[in-house]
Amino acid sequence: MRDAYHDELDAITDQLVEMTELVGQAITQATEALLDSDLSIAESVIDGDDSVDIIRENVDRRTVDLIARQQPVAGDLRRLTTGLRIASDLERSGDLAVHVAKLARRKFPACAVPNELQATIREMGEVAADIVGKAGHVVAGRDADRAAELESDDDVMDHLHRTLLLTMLAPEWPYGVDTAIDLALVGRYYERFADHAVAVAKQVVYLVTGETAMRN
Amino acid sequence: MRDAYHDELDAITDQLVEMTELVGQAITQATEALLDSDLSIAESVIDGDDSVDIIRENVDRRTVDLIARQQPVAGDLRRLTTGLRIASDLERSGDLAVHVAKLARRKFPACAVPNELQATIREMGEVAADIVGKAGHVVAGRDADRAAELESDDDVMDHLHRTLLLTMLAPEWPYGVDTAIDLALVGRYYERFADHAVAVAKQVVYLVTGETAMRN
Repeated sequence: MRDAYHDELDAITDQLVEMTELVGQAITQATEALLDSDLSIAESVIDGDDSVDIIRENVDRRTVDLIARQQPVAGDLRRLTTGLRIASDLERSGDLAVHVAKLARRKFPACAVPNELQATIREMGEVAADIVGKAGHVVAGRDADRAAELESDDDVMDHLHRTLLLTMLAPEWPYGVDTAIDLALVGRYYERFADHAVAVAKQVVYLVTGETAMRN
Repeated sequence: MRDAYHDELDAITDQLVEMTELVGQAITQATEALLDSDLSIAESVIDGDDSVDIIRENVDRRTVDLIARQQPVAGDLRRLTTGLRIASDLERSGDLAVHVAKLARRKFPACAVPNELQATIREMGEVAADIVGKAGHVVAGRDADRAAELESDDDVMDHLHRTLLLTMLAPEWPYGVDTAIDLALVGRYYERFADHAVAVAKQVVYLVTGETAMRN
């Protein structure tokens, strides 16, 4: 039988996993809003970020309460402080999905993404959702082996980001400076989203193995 | 007479203040490297970021050790977990200074910043250094009153960022898409740098007053 203390530790982990699910949905919907110029989906991503922020505040409060009341031993303590950091990364991921959605809203009813870059942005959205989904599995299962997969997903994201930039830098780019600036920033949002997911997974690896995570 | 426990708490605060000083120097030097196309200063910012990362790791380790050994009461515990978050923001600020320096290095011997935007970027660098310096004072003095100043500095940064973007979006912008993309990203790095400094100050306010910090 589990005691209340371990139930509370697990409940915090569940909240972190829920955050990965929410921000995964957010980046998927934000990408849809951006590609289809869908204002109502964009608004729903922007409004929905509050629930991510609330969970993060809840994780922070529960963590500090648990440390104060239970004085956990070193391993549990490290798990708890790692959770604080994971929650911070995931809150930031939610903000980045909001930035994507806000561009969709600002450009509405026009579409921010020209036809020839729709596939690249679509793939960036898919990789972003995939990578944070895997980060969620790593958090849920404390599965350090799986974490390596995220690094290669992150390489795919970097490649897509380079493709995006190179397309805009070609001499025949016909969409002007304004579209290029918007897409350069959007590319950065997806790239950072993936970076945060990788950071989440690395923190679990560090927790499980005690190995120093690679520096960002 | 102070006991070893409070000396250790203060030593962690000193390390956070040192981080604000290092990243303040880094953004100042990165700006200089960018505006003057100075490769050696750029390299020194890039290499120097290791020392920021090392202090952050040290803060993390000392904090967890102190919690585990001393089982601090609620107020000190909150101070310690806030310190973890501040260290994370400041490490990220250092990364952003490195991004600015890397653009200077990539463009060398050319200069990434056209003449008519030199003053804007110079001012962004000055505001960034100023704001993280103030964040350092807030951390050192746990000075919640002073924190409000950072919000208005952050407004100045947002204004500079808009000026930068509007200059590039003018129909007569003669420097092409590549320069616009580089400067849009650089503008974002300065803006995020300021955001992290504001976040640092807000965390101190939250610590001192118990008020919920405004959401980012």
